[in-house]
Amino acid sequence: MGLRTLCATALITAVALAPALSAKTIESERAEFKLSTIADDLKNPWGLTFLPDGSMLVTERVGNIRRVSANGEVSEPLSGLPDIVVKGQGGLLDIATDPDYANNGYVYFSYSEPGENDTNSTALARARIDGQTLVDLEVIFSQKPKVKSNAHFGSRIVFKGDGTLFLTLGDRYSRMDDAQTLDNHHGKVIRINTDGSVPADNPFLQTEGALPEIWSYGHRNMQGGTIHPETGEFWSGEHGAQGGDEINIDRAGVNYGWPVITYGENYGGGKIGEGFKKAGMEAPIYYWLPSLATAGLTFYSGDKFPDWQGDLFVASLRAETLSRLDIENGRVLHEERMLSDELGERIRHVTQGPDGYLYLLTDQGDGKIIRLTPSD
Amino acid sequence: MGLRTLCATALITAVALAPALSAKTIESERAEFKLSTIADDLKNPWGLTFLPDGSMLVTERVGNIRRVSANGEVSEPLSGLPDIVVKGQGGLLDIATDPDYANNGYVYFSYSEPGENDTNSTALARARIDGQTLVDLEVIFSQKPKVKSNAHFGSRIVFKGDGTLFLTLGDRYSRMDDAQTLDNHHGKVIRINTDGSVPADNPFLQTEGALPEIWSYGHRNMQGGTIHPETGEFWSGEHGAQGGDEINIDRAGVNYGWPVITYGENYGGGKIGEGFKKAGMEAPIYYWLPSLATAGLTFYSGDKFPDWQGDLFVASLRAETLSRLDIENGRVLHEERMLSDELGERIRHVTQGPDGYLYLLTDQGDGKIIRLTPSD
Ligand SMILES: [Ca+2]
Ligand SMILES: [Ca+2]
Ligand SMILES: [Ca+2]
Ligand SMILES: [Ca+2]
Repeated sequence: MGLRTLCATALITAVALAPALSAKTIESERAEFKLSTIADDLKNPWGLTFLPDGSMLVTERVGNIRRVSANGEVSEPLSGLPDIVVKGQGGLLDIATDPDYANNGYVYFSYSEPGENDTNSTALARARIDGQTLVDLEVIFSQKPKVKSNAHFGSRIVFKGDGTLFLTLGDRYSRMDDAQTLDNHHGKVIRINTDGSVPADNPFLQTEGALPEIWSYGHRNMQGGTIHPETGEFWSGEHGAQGGDEINIDRAGVNYGWPVITYGENYGGGKIGEGFKKAGMEAPIYYWLPSLATAGLTFYSGDKFPDWQGDLFVASLRAETLSRLDIENGRVLHEERMLSDELGERIRHVTQGPDGYLYLLTDQGDGKIIRLTPSD
Repeated sequence: MGLRTLCATALITAVALAPALSAKTIESERAEFKLSTIADDLKNPWGLTFLPDGSMLVTERVGNIRRVSANGEVSEPLSGLPDIVVKGQGGLLDIATDPDYANNGYVYFSYSEPGENDTNSTALARARIDGQTLVDLEVIFSQKPKVKSNAHFGSRIVFKGDGTLFLTLGDRYSRMDDAQTLDNHHGKVIRINTDGSVPADNPFLQTEGALPEIWSYGHRNMQGGTIHPETGEFWSGEHGAQGGDEINIDRAGVNYGWPVITYGENYGGGKIGEGFKKAGMEAPIYYWLPSLATAGLTFYSGDKFPDWQGDLFVASLRAETLSRLDIENGRVLHEERMLSDELGERIRHVTQGPDGYLYLLTDQGDGKIIRLTPSD
């Protein structure tokens, strides 16, 4: 155990005793729960995944992967990562464990990959872990083209459950018009096999000039994605412009409209695109105006909060809230916003642990992993 | 023109010049509009309908029907109304013009009808208008049974477009369990022909002991109903208990759950029923928690506000707001709440005029008819 781990553990103990996050029962519409800080002192944690032994891997945007034990001991950063561009919204982003991890030991992570002449783009790598080191590193996807931009990298890694995965990719801000054309990976969801090869049933394989990894297009900056536990559909969350964060059900080959149709306007004012509706472009199934700056999201399917089953939880940065979208029959019936008062921190991610609890990452220089547990 | 009409006209002029309701442009998400007071000094106006000559008929809950000319002249109350119980939430309620009014001259109105021993229930009558008098009055439906109650009378009158009409009926508050059984009209939507007879394709005609007028059941207190302009479906709005106002798409024979499933709790606290979900009971397509106290509602289908087309507008009493539910493909994507600041009055009803403008009724002793027009 390194010095930092010891310090982190000490800090955790102190925080866990603070009444703000431990003792207080939070009453919400369908559950009473408590918050526990599992780890803190993390630098802008972005992605979180669980290993079979009950430990977690967490990314820090500054370029670290750390292992966190079930009782909150935080390791030194793993070594063996590729070069990562850490600036603006860029850095080390999401992390995910292979569904067949027990047999193949792969973890996947997305990050800002440097190119020539100060360019960059989002890339996806996989590796195995040997002690404190990543081994067998392979970069299985690099977004094309690389451009000079500090913004809109996406990205979430979501396994479809059929040997393929989705990666959500931003429009790089300066290249928003690219989201409407298929000759690039800007503003796209891509689908690849877990070894990086292209699935034989991707939607644009027969389309002249289209990049074969593309699954859906017309997106802006997606920092959330998850599989519906019953339908198997891929649901994504997307930052809108000023206003207009969206939830979409992402289907093969569909155009989600950005920047032609949108619910927001440019920062500082000014209309974007042609309005909010156009033939051939799919409307979201829910949107926020003003926007919350939505990030990670997950369906709740555990047994710890029975009355949350089937609902979509959405983390938000600017609004510092956790939204619960009450869903029945594919419709959002109601939104409940939680934690703005009780936590009051930017929330980068929400995901469900194998234990059926929800886990949050707060987006700060002193960021936390927080677990939600029923209060009784 | 009677003395009251002259006075009302004078008052209208004064109000119309007040900057609060005339000069100010209200900016909303998809339209800039102005409010104009068409008439005021109305006692708790409840229902509003339009005649082919451009005039309107408005009900006052105290038991009056008044004619309002297109430029806002308010007539003396019409004579020839039946006996009406005016107490609590009861009185004269909705009013509607026959779709074939040009040929048959019928108007329909719902009201609290007295019974023996201080009982009452909601009834529906139709009549023709001869000058200042109702003639050819027929009571075409009376809710059964009559009970002693001052509350939950419903009601909205909505023409289905096939020679039948829907009437929404409350559970009378004291009889909420009746909403689950078919031997009474409490907590039901009923469907009848415009002469009061029962349509041959109503859903419970073959059900032993069921009242033949019933269309759907398991409702609480519905003060809103409208036909979707494209699908022809009947959408209704329902007051929940403390929390849990609902929008439902009301289909033939369906159980909408009250009081077994609900999103609210009893006033003062305490659980109602069995939760929020049960096999055989339909979830709403949208609900509010906390509730707004929703009342009248309408789809917008006019040409004056192109970007509102297809959206559902919902009036609310307690929340003093006009909600716009942005709808695509039968889903509510987003809710916008308007007018809480600019108007700040309880809103009983919203409906679309034949001119394509929206009209509101404010629920006060000095209630108003307000028109929304684009500000261009
Ligand atoms: Ca979109
Ligand atoms: Ca639900
Ligand atoms: Ca219901
Ligand atoms: Ca719409």
